[in-house]
Amino acid sequence: MNSHCPSEPTGWQQVLRSGWLSHELSGPFQLRHGASGRARRLLFSQLFQPRNLQAGGEAGWDGRPGEPTCRSQKLMLQAGLIHPASPGCYCYLPPTVRAMEKLIKVMDEEMQAVGGQKLNVPSLSSAELWRASGRWEQMGPELFRLVDRHGKGYCLGPTHEEAVTELVAAQSNLSYKQLPLRLYQVTRKFRDEPKPRFGLLRSREFYMKDMYTFDASKEAAQHTYDLVCDAYCSLFDRLGLPFVKVQAATGSIGGTVSHEFQLPADIGEDRLVLCPDGHFAANVETLNKEQTSCPTCGEKLTQTRGIEVGHTFYLGTKYSSVSNAVFCSPQNKLQLAEMGCYGLGVTRILAASIEVLSTDDSIRWPSLITPYQLCFIPPKRGSEEEEEGAMLLERLYEDLAEVLPHLTGDSVLDDRTQLTIGKRLKDANKLGYPYVVIAGKRVCEDPPVFEVWNQNTSEVLFLTKEGVIELLSKVQVL
Amino acid sequence: MNSHCPSEPTGWQQVLRSGWLSHELSGPFQLRHGASGRARRLLFSQLFQPRNLQAGGEAGWDGRPGEPTCRSQKLMLQAGLIHPASPGCYCYLPPTVRAMEKLIKVMDEEMQAVGGQKLNVPSLSSAELWRASGRWEQMGPELFRLVDRHGKGYCLGPTHEEAVTELVAAQSNLSYKQLPLRLYQVTRKFRDEPKPRFGLLRSREFYMKDMYTFDASKEAAQHTYDLVCDAYCSLFDRLGLPFVKVQAATGSIGGTVSHEFQLPADIGEDRLVLCPDGHFAANVETLNKEQTSCPTCGEKLTQTRGIEVGHTFYLGTKYSSVSNAVFCSPQNKLQLAEMGCYGLGVTRILAASIEVLSTDDSIRWPSLITPYQLCFIPPKRGSEEEEEGAMLLERLYEDLAEVLPHLTGDSVLDDRTQLTIGKRLKDANKLGYPYVVIAGKRVCEDPPVFEVWNQNTSEVLFLTKEGVIELLSKVQVL
Ligand SMILES: [Zn+2]
Ligand SMILES: [Zn+2]
Repeated sequence: MNSHCPSEPTGWQQVLRSGWLSHELSGPFQLRHGASGRARRLLFSQLFQPRNLQAGGEAGWDGRPGEPTCRSQKLMLQAGLIHPASPGCYCYLPPTVRAMEKLIKVMDEEMQAVGGQKLNVPSLSSAELWRASGRWEQMGPELFRLVDRHGKGYCLGPTHEEAVTELVAAQSNLSYKQLPLRLYQVTRKFRDEPKPRFGLLRSREFYMKDMYTFDASKEAAQHTYDLVCDAYCSLFDRLGLPFVKVQAATGSIGGTVSHEFQLPADIGEDRLVLCPDGHFAANVETLNKEQTSCPTCGEKLTQTRGIEVGHTFYLGTKYSSVSNAVFCSPQNKLQLAEMGCYGLGVTRILAASIEVLSTDDSIRWPSLITPYQLCFIPPKRGSEEEEEGAMLLERLYEDLAEVLPHLTGDSVLDDRTQLTIGKRLKDANKLGYPYVVIAGKRVCEDPPVFEVWNQNTSEVLFLTKEGVIELLSKVQVL
Repeated sequence: MNSHCPSEPTGWQQVLRSGWLSHELSGPFQLRHGASGRARRLLFSQLFQPRNLQAGGEAGWDGRPGEPTCRSQKLMLQAGLIHPASPGCYCYLPPTVRAMEKLIKVMDEEMQAVGGQKLNVPSLSSAELWRASGRWEQMGPELFRLVDRHGKGYCLGPTHEEAVTELVAAQSNLSYKQLPLRLYQVTRKFRDEPKPRFGLLRSREFYMKDMYTFDASKEAAQHTYDLVCDAYCSLFDRLGLPFVKVQAATGSIGGTVSHEFQLPADIGEDRLVLCPDGHFAANVETLNKEQTSCPTCGEKLTQTRGIEVGHTFYLGTKYSSVSNAVFCSPQNKLQLAEMGCYGLGVTRILAASIEVLSTDDSIRWPSLITPYQLCFIPPKRGSEEEEEGAMLLERLYEDLAEVLPHLTGDSVLDDRTQLTIGKRLKDANKLGYPYVVIAGKRVCEDPPVFEVWNQNTSEVLFLTKEGVIELLSKVQVL
């Protein structure tokens, strides 16, 4: 097939005309299908991402009147990233699932770099287990509770200290040689919030990465604590999110030392005080009186609000003593394991990222976890450059697929060619693809020139095909 | 550092002596650490996989006396793949999570190849939604039910027809051009089984891949139905699992056409009849009388038992009519979407695979989703070939990491060098790594010869380093 012949449409041109989803196409597409790398071309018009962008502002937002809202909630509802199911419970729509899976990959890398082993603990957690730790009463109405068909009581785990400690306690003959144990999971958690709000920032169902660690001594446990905190810092650095680590209260989890990882934001529910030189940072709830100056340098503390996205606890033996989680020491004695627990809010980090990186009407993601890296915009239907532009964009895509195959699954073609380029670029800006590649007027020049928007830096570049490929070769896809 | 000098241990030799986890090693290891590809060497002794292999038979199995059991349940408990939390609720231990994540990747590939878009629906599903469809009463005690702090009723979703139909119904202006919609998720599901048993084969919490499809006509919906069934066949083929697709009853889900995907096994709870020439296959519950011969060819039907691992339903408008899930037709009329729903048991497929592929005391996995592809066994401590063998195995690993980097995260080093090679090989056989690479006596030959077991074919090969690398280059890692 001669793709230079304008009368025989190929690739996207054909897609654009037929309106079919690529996997149902016959012809050149299926030739590229392999066992695992089956070609998928994602067409904007076919993506299930019900958008309410046109009306601007609040139109299409499903929040109830009078309910407080925030930037990320509004943007995520408008852009078709989430859909409310019941108070504090959301359907995560396809782009959100993509971002979430990328975020989980980053978390897996960071957790496994500190020796984390991934497991998966049931949501149903028996009432006895929670009574033994005292949390069945202590948690009050925040715990979702139910009974099974035999009348046995359960809660839906908001965290899993009891369950994981019980699991480790069940290992007879655990030796000090097997410690540290650093066990984690990424699962859905439940909390019956008194006032669920702000979309994924405070919901009743949410995904959390929770790690539980078991060490042979206080010193070893402190080392683990520092390692995991460093891993959290590394994660937020890689996401490019400005964060502060503050001393925090231990709350219903318990333990003696605790820190929160906070993203500074006006909408944040936590009040923080910070030394401008970085000596001291605390959640005000940890201070027993109004503290106004840094305990180290005496500087005046600044105040800010933050969204809590991570929380670490040094637990000591609070849970290991309840479940009798012991190991055999070098002196052949049974000793209680020293524990820590560590949480990162997965869905909350998604929303908090949008909260702190976006403008009032345009979503911005951390580049590493954006649902799609690239949006291609072909010419408007009936325009002078329609045929030529679509064909050249298709060839650019094919070359890209050859040289940078990891980008193909991260690319969307905005096939709404009934709309002007300007209108589609405006939508692309609101949706926040890091790169937008446009076949505009200059695509008819020799050599053809594409218009490329880097939306995270607000730069526009005019590049040849080779230039586009070079630029995009720097994009990291997880 | 000169790795030829036997007095200066390197790599695994150093690992074996120090007993440290690799990520905490200083020295040559850290040089390999990159931003994302940080080296992880997995040491058998440090993996959280509490094994009860020694005692053989039932020792270490936590099932209650008198409770029925089966091969996969016993093997998974013995090998530290699962740990019971409460009846029908299991912790999935690290190797199981690895296998599950690989299986989900295969499912994602197959679902996305038929245009599937992945979303994520809440577990909490409101009582009203289930009352509207009639399933709140119909499901009876199988539904886990609870009320929130405001007294509002919910169930924990066993499937999500209501929720996904509601989501699609909420899209105003849905056009026929946007159909078909093929939406799926992979999430934890809940079912209060009267008799949870057989480990992950019939549990109360389980992972399921569930897809819901919306088409513009009966014909289009039938096409979708066929496509998804083909994708299921492709999945089981890729896993190398013998399966049959049988006509099935629609049960509480409803609809008019239904098929089950069954793995033939004595322990299976379903009774199937099959034409030996493949014309006819059915779950006996679909036959209104004892049927003994094939309706097509008249051959005598054979009987077998099966484990249901997948189920497909043509739903028609059963759910779309309740939620008023409509689209705008080419004639600009509102029409109810024609639906289908499709389920694959994720955790059940893991257990069923072990059930049908394993022997009574040795686990076998589908190669594609095995937790680890490779086990390395260095010489016994104090043996003649200890130094030389460990060094050569380390060099083999390093060359492998160079040429086949995807295998490094799938490799375990059995560092229990206090045990003989024979004892460790026996454990490796029980745990079912597809490949076991041993530095035995012949490692001192020139050139060194490694002993390689292909456990899925029961072959033993004696190969040079180059031979090992060539053999392993065929291994597919997800
Ligand atoms: Zn200071
Ligand atoms: Zn027949």
